[in-house]
Amino acid sequence: MAEKLPTRAENYSEWYNDLVRRADLADYSPVKGCMVIKPYGFAIWERMQGILDGMFKATGHQNAYFPLLIPKSFFSKEAAHVEGFAKECAVVTHYRLMKNPNGPGVVVDPEAKLEEEYIIRPTSETIIWDTYKGWIQSYRDLPLLINQWANIVRWEMRTRLFLRTTEFLWQEGHTAHATSEDAIAETKQMLNVYADFATNYMAIPVIKGMKTASERFAGAIETYCIEAMMQDGKALQAGTSHFLGQNFAKAFEVTFLDKNNKRDYVWATSWGVSTRLMGALVMTHSDDEGLVLPPILAPIQVVIIPIYKTEDERKKVLDAINLFIKNKLEYQLFNANKIRYKIDDDDNKRPGWKFAEWELKGVPIRLVIGPKDLENEKIEIYRRDKKTKQILDAAEALDSIADLLEEIQDNLYQTALQNQQKLTHKTDNWNEFLELLEKSGGFIEAHWDGTVETEEKIKELSKATIRCIPLNQAHESGKCILTGKPSGQRVIFARAY
Amino acid sequence: MAEKLPTRAENYSEWYNDLVRRADLADYSPVKGCMVIKPYGFAIWERMQGILDGMFKATGHQNAYFPLLIPKSFFSKEAAHVEGFAKECAVVTHYRLMKNPNGPGVVVDPEAKLEEEYIIRPTSETIIWDTYKGWIQSYRDLPLLINQWANIVRWEMRTRLFLRTTEFLWQEGHTAHATSEDAIAETKQMLNVYADFATNYMAIPVIKGMKTASERFAGAIETYCIEAMMQDGKALQAGTSHFLGQNFAKAFEVTFLDKNNKRDYVWATSWGVSTRLMGALVMTHSDDEGLVLPPILAPIQVVIIPIYKTEDERKKVLDAINLFIKNKLEYQLFNANKIRYKIDDDDNKRPGWKFAEWELKGVPIRLVIGPKDLENEKIEIYRRDKKTKQILDAAEALDSIADLLEEIQDNLYQTALQNQQKLTHKTDNWNEFLELLEKSGGFIEAHWDGTVETEEKIKELSKATIRCIPLNQAHESGKCILTGKPSGQRVIFARAY
Repeated sequence: MAEKLPTRAENYSEWYNDLVRRADLADYSPVKGCMVIKPYGFAIWERMQGILDGMFKATGHQNAYFPLLIPKSFFSKEAAHVEGFAKECAVVTHYRLMKNPNGPGVVVDPEAKLEEEYIIRPTSETIIWDTYKGWIQSYRDLPLLINQWANIVRWEMRTRLFLRTTEFLWQEGHTAHATSEDAIAETKQMLNVYADFATNYMAIPVIKGMKTASERFAGAIETYCIEAMMQDGKALQAGTSHFLGQNFAKAFEVTFLDKNNKRDYVWATSWGVSTRLMGALVMTHSDDEGLVLPPILAPIQVVIIPIYKTEDERKKVLDAINLFIKNKLEYQLFNANKIRYKIDDDDNKRPGWKFAEWELKGVPIRLVIGPKDLENEKIEIYRRDKKTKQILDAAEALDSIADLLEEIQDNLYQTALQNQQKLTHKTDNWNEFLELLEKSGGFIEAHWDGTVETEEKIKELSKATIRCIPLNQAHESGKCILTGKPSGQRVIFARAY
Repeated sequence: MAEKLPTRAENYSEWYNDLVRRADLADYSPVKGCMVIKPYGFAIWERMQGILDGMFKATGHQNAYFPLLIPKSFFSKEAAHVEGFAKECAVVTHYRLMKNPNGPGVVVDPEAKLEEEYIIRPTSETIIWDTYKGWIQSYRDLPLLINQWANIVRWEMRTRLFLRTTEFLWQEGHTAHATSEDAIAETKQMLNVYADFATNYMAIPVIKGMKTASERFAGAIETYCIEAMMQDGKALQAGTSHFLGQNFAKAFEVTFLDKNNKRDYVWATSWGVSTRLMGALVMTHSDDEGLVLPPILAPIQVVIIPIYKTEDERKKVLDAINLFIKNKLEYQLFNANKIRYKIDDDDNKRPGWKFAEWELKGVPIRLVIGPKDLENEKIEIYRRDKKTKQILDAAEALDSIADLLEEIQDNLYQTALQNQQKLTHKTDNWNEFLELLEKSGGFIEAHWDGTVETEEKIKELSKATIRCIPLNQAHESGKCILTGKPSGQRVIFARAY
């Protein structure tokens, strides 16, 4: 392992970038704004995918796959949608290369120009609703509950690994319903699925809320979101669920016959989370030593490091590990899986190097065992989250691992929750509002007069946006933090990723 | 369900297209040459993915993700590679749309032209080897065993659902090794993984072999393949595994220090299978009534259809199903999973309609139960592959289902194998060679003089290509079927998809 990471206090942004790269999560690529997701990072994403996919299926959704390319004309069909996405579209104009007639290499063949250009999907509402037109005739075809796992391209100018990249991976649910009520219920259900996933798997506390009109998805009637708080006081939108009304059904002429044989437009939702969640995961739990992973998502939950000097010691220690410890771990169930462990018996690296490496990579538990431990039937057990170690009787240590993993999962959530609470403030004073943002950042619960103009003005003056109008909050009258005009409910402000 | 499918004898090609669409596997899209994979088709693909992914991981591979877009200049770095792919590349030239200044809709913003164009990946060797340069320094970094699940775009002029589409889904393995021997061993290992998967999961017999020079992957030293035989006598390449030598390492300057501290270029392999396998699956097993699915891959293994006239009967039959049959199926293990079943209690459809529908969709077993059966404790059990039904004691019928699923899986393989054998011919006579191709198609084992010229000539005269030089075949001297020149081994000819 190379030199230490910068600390969070020194430079939070550099700490994040270095950590993502050095823990082998992701790296930059020669394609501007696009990342390579490395095997260790991808293994975490795969676990997240698997859990989410199970949750989607448990709520009645099926997966399907729609084309990557979208005819340009589809975008113009929904006015707000094209407005929102036109400025960041990768455009395919040709379908062939040819040998460069004037030198080495290849050039675009000018003869192979497309009649109509294609856009690489920045989201798939248009192509999907064009398809649904052929799938939906009657109320019997509804609800249509479909999800897609896919790659997405949005041409971003300022990019950051996982948090904002030109290409990213995501899932996008697209559902069709017979009534407005059904569609709204689906929108809320999926918001709750996301909140459940963030809380109980990623160990990230989130606030559920609705976006203001200016922060809504392009083409939505209502956008619900979950918002998380990072350690540096900046908020991160971790998932969105949109009630699309009949906007896309009207744009693509998707109608159905209802039970009374009346024709109506179909009601829609869409909802998505992306590899951005990887950024939230890193920034919520990690520390100056590196990554800290919730055990449920950790590709390796327990790393076992043998200590030895002589070849004879090496053999004895590894034999004990293979005979005894491996068996114990394979029979201990956690989250319906065997414990995922790795024995790091690499001869070319010293124990100290290995300790630092697996700490950097966020493995929740480290077991260390040497010849002395063997004699005394002891094991050293170290937990990554609290950075504490204990020497325990071997049997006791191994028996405690499943519980300890659950405890670590829980502790990460509690720690993140405390941090979120510490970084949540309530104020009715504009100067305090600005001071809080400068000093600690965080969520600020404040009154707002409900106008776009004030929202814009506050953003301009403070760089804070309205993250959401929280769902689970008592209504309370007050006066707008900026204008003093009446307000019926506090909203949540923050500077955000 | 609409009218019957065309039969295979009437029009094999129409039968295939109609079947794929009507069994809800896939459909055309408004994007030329691109398909929509529908939920039922995608559920089969997901099962295939899951099994293959497990096999890749069991052989030490990890998943990762590399950018969709590849800088155009990367293609020119490996001469054979660019030659092979330049003619079918989708090219991204711009990154923004703008409002049409002369009318409605949007146009490409001419100001947002890329300095260097990007190609949508037709395969990822170039971007991956450019990345590996940063990951490989010493023999300790090798082997590097990585797989990617991704979408691919190759601009095809004549397309067909699953078999040849402009966009398709696939996995591509890309591995790096310290020696030529290691890389060749990996190439062969993955060929065997593919053959195992085709045989034991898809129930498709395959011939393992090597491609001739003219059929090799663009940039490979050697291409291994598995070839399957469809019911209409045409061959289908079902998977390829390439030994790339040091071609890509040289093109992208990927070197390593070996154990003796000597610098050398890295040795490479790549290997892939795609949604094309879905086409092979359909064409190998299905019949004039519709899809026939191997139980291991069937999203629904058992469909249960209640028969009733009155509301009272309906209640009794469904109660029995819910109380008794469901429990039985959930406790019967097959392939380490519960049996996947569906109770079709849709009130709007008649039993006859349901029988035809689930037959079209290839569900391996159908159980039918009515009020009479209930009284007599009988169940009607129908197997899709042989189209035979039996009325059995209920307990006996349910207990036999796990075994019956295995039997169906095995029968599908045996039937496909018989078909392949029936369609495999050996000849040393050119006229017979042509006659066989015209009459029945199939694999023809014949001698070839080993030259590209003769291979081309045979293709021109017969429309048959050399599918492969089979691996498991006794060497046998003979004379080339066309030129009479000496040959040391028979090769496999066929007309192909």
